[in-house]
Amino acid sequence: MDDVGAVEAVLLEFLREKTAAALAEGLPGEVPGLLGDFVGAGGKRVRPLLCLLGWRAARGPGGDPRAIRVAASLELFHAFALIHDDLMDHSDTRRGRPTLQHFLTVRHQVGRTHTAAARLGAAAALLAGDVALAWSAELLHTAGLTHAQLATALGRTDAMRTQVMYGQYLDLLSTGRPGPDTGIPWKVIRCKTAGYTFVHPLLLGAELTGAGSALTDALAEYGWAAGEAFQLGDDLLGVFGRPDETGKPNGDDLREGKHTLLAALAYERADAVQRAALDRHLGDAGLDEEGACRLREVLTATGAHDAVRRTVRERCRAAVQALEGAPLPEAVRRALTDLAAAQDSRTG
Amino acid sequence: MDDVGAVEAVLLEFLREKTAAALAEGLPGEVPGLLGDFVGAGGKRVRPLLCLLGWRAARGPGGDPRAIRVAASLELFHAFALIHDDLMDHSDTRRGRPTLQHFLTVRHQVGRTHTAAARLGAAAALLAGDVALAWSAELLHTAGLTHAQLATALGRTDAMRTQVMYGQYLDLLSTGRPGPDTGIPWKVIRCKTAGYTFVHPLLLGAELTGAGSALTDALAEYGWAAGEAFQLGDDLLGVFGRPDETGKPNGDDLREGKHTLLAALAYERADAVQRAALDRHLGDAGLDEEGACRLREVLTATGAHDAVRRTVRERCRAAVQALEGAPLPEAVRRALTDLAAAQDSRTG
Repeated sequence: MDDVGAVEAVLLEFLREKTAAALAEGLPGEVPGLLGDFVGAGGKRVRPLLCLLGWRAARGPGGDPRAIRVAASLELFHAFALIHDDLMDHSDTRRGRPTLQHFLTVRHQVGRTHTAAARLGAAAALLAGDVALAWSAELLHTAGLTHAQLATALGRTDAMRTQVMYGQYLDLLSTGRPGPDTGIPWKVIRCKTAGYTFVHPLLLGAELTGAGSALTDALAEYGWAAGEAFQLGDDLLGVFGRPDETGKPNGDDLREGKHTLLAALAYERADAVQRAALDRHLGDAGLDEEGACRLREVLTATGAHDAVRRTVRERCRAAVQALEGAPLPEAVRRALTDLAAAQDSRTG
Repeated sequence: MDDVGAVEAVLLEFLREKTAAALAEGLPGEVPGLLGDFVGAGGKRVRPLLCLLGWRAARGPGGDPRAIRVAASLELFHAFALIHDDLMDHSDTRRGRPTLQHFLTVRHQVGRTHTAAARLGAAAALLAGDVALAWSAELLHTAGLTHAQLATALGRTDAMRTQVMYGQYLDLLSTGRPGPDTGIPWKVIRCKTAGYTFVHPLLLGAELTGAGSALTDALAEYGWAAGEAFQLGDDLLGVFGRPDETGKPNGDDLREGKHTLLAALAYERADAVQRAALDRHLGDAGLDEEGACRLREVLTATGAHDAVRRTVRERCRAAVQALEGAPLPEAVRRALTDLAAAQDSRTG
């Protein structure tokens, strides 16, 4: 079984056991069932994979059940983050399916008014997210780690949680109010993506083996750079990507007025006319295709698009360079290098 | 310094450090600041106190900083639970002050539409609750416990989290649909109050010392009984209490149609006319004082009030009895006995 398969098997088995335990005690088995459907519905499992690459980078043996369980805990944490993000965004769909709050609203609609059902759906999804967070910790606690491993892993995941929550908080406060400040988007990128998705998972895996600083420093440097490239690439695709290729709509960031680096650089470089177009269209909830085109024009003409594109390339190079000379197995170096290269190539 | 003072000092110092760290990194210090205000605004600290009573019951030394930090982590967990409960209930006030989502809506209103500010307030409060949950765990992780203590404490708090979340889920699903089923309110009482507020805090404290089963069994039996009495007493006061004495409105449970034991017993014993009154008024969002009076009349005439009152008394006795012969210091026995007796006497 490959890493993704092993992680998914652990997750689904954990949630099956929770369902059985709930039903045996007359408690709502709906909760673990919903989480099983949620994590079973897909996702690239980037964080568990990076955790296992970190573990292998430090020469942890393949297929170790402790490492796989720790990796799986990251995926359940991510389910928590997505469920709560969807609530904060009032989203109705995720990955082409109804979001949890929408699904629960429909499930509990019979005999309730629309408002009562929607409130119940949102409340139940909020709780299911809380449960996912609690159970992601439980997966880690029950991974059979030694005291030293457990202490390190708890410290690492504590730092990860705080960082991603701060990133989300900053993102919330700045969305709808884009401007020329490039410091804000860089902070959000580092907290919400580079740290959360790359650095912490890699180091969580590596530190389980007691890896030395020559390796962990290199992995961290790689993670920051690759993670920044990953988020900046997402930002570009979210505006300029073709929905039929990316599977995602390409105007949401513009409509919400996300304070991305792309938007900040455009503000920084805009002349009066371009600035007026940004002010008018960025964050317009009713943005149509004409307005979106005008924004893409400004983002391109100001050079913001090219600047972000160059930064993606530069960050990918920095990521690969960070691994040069680092004491890690060739297969891991190749996997990490390929991952960084993929961030570069997907934005054209 | 007494236990409450020691717990509050640890909490506020932890949050002050978080604020300083956030500001030093340019991250939103608003989050720990808000949590500091929230936990500083009051509360009876029941769970930390029970945790410290459990610790002392097992002859843990008074003033031990590890025990106090573990106890403090329960209060931060409770802040998480209250913040998310207020979101689920769409409440505007708590303890006579604005709820966190209401406060954040007002704070971030400038330059935003009312809808945008309300969404941001709710989203920011949701996140602040998530942070409180994450940091309650961090307080525990950094309490300086031995491996055995940490493993036990993690298992105990994992069980506590799952139980209270299931209880809240059951409560959500059953609210607005009261009926004669007494199984549902008993499950909610046991999960949401008896287990969460009494049994788990007591055992968390006792188990830190490696207490034997003669003690932990007695504490658990005490906790279930006292916790049940506590919640049933709250249910009575929430309907029959005088707001000027309890500091709480006395019609909310009726208005929301909470499926309490009181409501279930009334349904079970009602004749056709009484049942029609229950159906008509219980869960009526616009319930007026006349309707509430009619409901109180039915709850009394069916004998539901007396039956719950008797159960409170019986559970208080069972709690005190559970401690007889248990190997615990006299001062702790007295404190626990007084706490149980207080549950009995406050409902008259």
